[in-house]
Amino acid sequence: MKKEVRVFAPASVSNVACGFDIMGFAIEKPGDEVVLRLAEKPGVRITKITGDQGKLPLDPEVNTAGAPVIALREYASFKGGIEIEIHKKMALGSGLGSSAASAVAAAFAADRLLGLELSKSQLLDFAIIGEKIASGAVHADNVAPSLYGGFILIRGYNPPDIVEIPVPEGLFCTVIHPHTEINTRESRKLLPALVTLEDAKTQWGNTAGLIAGLMKPDFGLIARSLQDVIIEPARKSTIPCYEKIKQASLEAGALGCNISGSGPSIFALSDSLSTARLVGEKMRLALDGNIGSEVYVSAINRRGPYVIEEK
Amino acid sequence: MKKEVRVFAPASVSNVACGFDIMGFAIEKPGDEVVLRLAEKPGVRITKITGDQGKLPLDPEVNTAGAPVIALREYASFKGGIEIEIHKKMALGSGLGSSAASAVAAAFAADRLLGLELSKSQLLDFAIIGEKIASGAVHADNVAPSLYGGFILIRGYNPPDIVEIPVPEGLFCTVIHPHTEINTRESRKLLPALVTLEDAKTQWGNTAGLIAGLMKPDFGLIARSLQDVIIEPARKSTIPCYEKIKQASLEAGALGCNISGSGPSIFALSDSLSTARLVGEKMRLALDGNIGSEVYVSAINRRGPYVIEEK
Repeated sequence: MKKEVRVFAPASVSNVACGFDIMGFAIEKPGDEVVLRLAEKPGVRITKITGDQGKLPLDPEVNTAGAPVIALREYASFKGGIEIEIHKKMALGSGLGSSAASAVAAAFAADRLLGLELSKSQLLDFAIIGEKIASGAVHADNVAPSLYGGFILIRGYNPPDIVEIPVPEGLFCTVIHPHTEINTRESRKLLPALVTLEDAKTQWGNTAGLIAGLMKPDFGLIARSLQDVIIEPARKSTIPCYEKIKQASLEAGALGCNISGSGPSIFALSDSLSTARLVGEKMRLALDGNIGSEVYVSAINRRGPYVIEEK
Repeated sequence: MKKEVRVFAPASVSNVACGFDIMGFAIEKPGDEVVLRLAEKPGVRITKITGDQGKLPLDPEVNTAGAPVIALREYASFKGGIEIEIHKKMALGSGLGSSAASAVAAAFAADRLLGLELSKSQLLDFAIIGEKIASGAVHADNVAPSLYGGFILIRGYNPPDIVEIPVPEGLFCTVIHPHTEINTRESRKLLPALVTLEDAKTQWGNTAGLIAGLMKPDFGLIARSLQDVIIEPARKSTIPCYEKIKQASLEAGALGCNISGSGPSIFALSDSLSTARLVGEKMRLALDGNIGSEVYVSAINRRGPYVIEEK
């Protein structure tokens, strides 16, 4: 057991154009930091949250980082106290798996603090407890990439069937986060309950194509597969300048561009760091100048969460 | 140029549970044979068809093997005559890509006869001309596997985006063909025009999972992905004893079992030849004894069509 553990967990891009609810990948930055510390007073307490502009609850029962720690403390039959600090390094509701990153960081840190040495498959169950608080549903397409790193396919649920997909060398991600907030629960209401068999076929051709493109690897196939005929049409109007930003990224050489999670962040994949940087510049220029934004250019994160320091 | 070419092209299993209209694989047997022969009298003539019980037209314009030969003769600006013999080695309307095999064999043989040396990608367009006559629609999920061999993903159409997926060593296919005929056009009418987003998601999780399972390879993942929540429920009642046969194959150790094409053939995949043989025995026992059947146990065909003899 440790006395204190500080953990980083990465942001993630879910859906990945064609893979609504079943795909995601982790990026090197941004990400959240969680510090766990043993305390004398029994129970779990959140002592500090930074970077959330006061929006996150201090009650650990209803906090995405708090709930996994409570569950892991119970799992370990640990009677002592645990204090939690949460340092949000990305905006809430950005579409980059912010709540998932906090939940993963907390679960990973609790495992280290208590010396449990659980597998990632076991930790996933605890991280999902946190994610469920944020999104109201059990989706693992941010939690699993943030925890495992790399590109993750969730083939199915009941139980989550996590498949690690090899990521080709030379694949880089650009993300622009326009400063508007989208509520994931509300955004889900925009989705159609029914889709045509034709559209569904197009989509599963692309999901299969994207996996094959990543595994071969074949950047041309990845590019042709990064299309979404079902979710993007329903959601794109919620994001300012979406079509202009997408167009600009493709003209700058991106393999593909689409909504990250439920938005408003937009991601693009490129086959080199220089292209990914150019894509970022063009995306920012295509966004209405009155709207603030962050742009992140990053390799794919291949390791998931890691310990920054511990004692 | 040759004087006479005899070509074999393999049967194929399309849809492959989760991959309706976008996936198929070729099997070593059965398959069709086509003989092309130079003739003095200009034009294209079908001189002989065996194994079709008189059901196929002798007019080459409306014959799945004739039409590709006509088109390739025109493409080559060949002024002479070509005679065609078609030897059907599998039943029509069996769900094993019978028309595709004839079209592929004919296109492949015409290429050899006329010394064109076209690529498989070019030959695909000609084989599709034949397939279109049989099925009334441009689907490449039997033609492409029969032509390329192996496991084929057709990511999308316009133009057909053919992706060759590596097939793991040790994968074997069992097919039972119960002696009832299903009309592909009629069978398509049973399909729903709309599907729920939930079912579509389940399906594209499985298409992605099947590709990952084949490429890793991971037989467990292949098994978990060989599911169809959209097409099988709509079509299974058209096939006698379908549920019993599927159940028997799974109990005998098959990785998965589903409808081949639009049926009535049923395929199962297994991780060894001995299991594939046992699956075949159990499938036959599960079929109503009053219904005749053939059972084929076969490796995956990895080469597509080949020349049996030429002079």
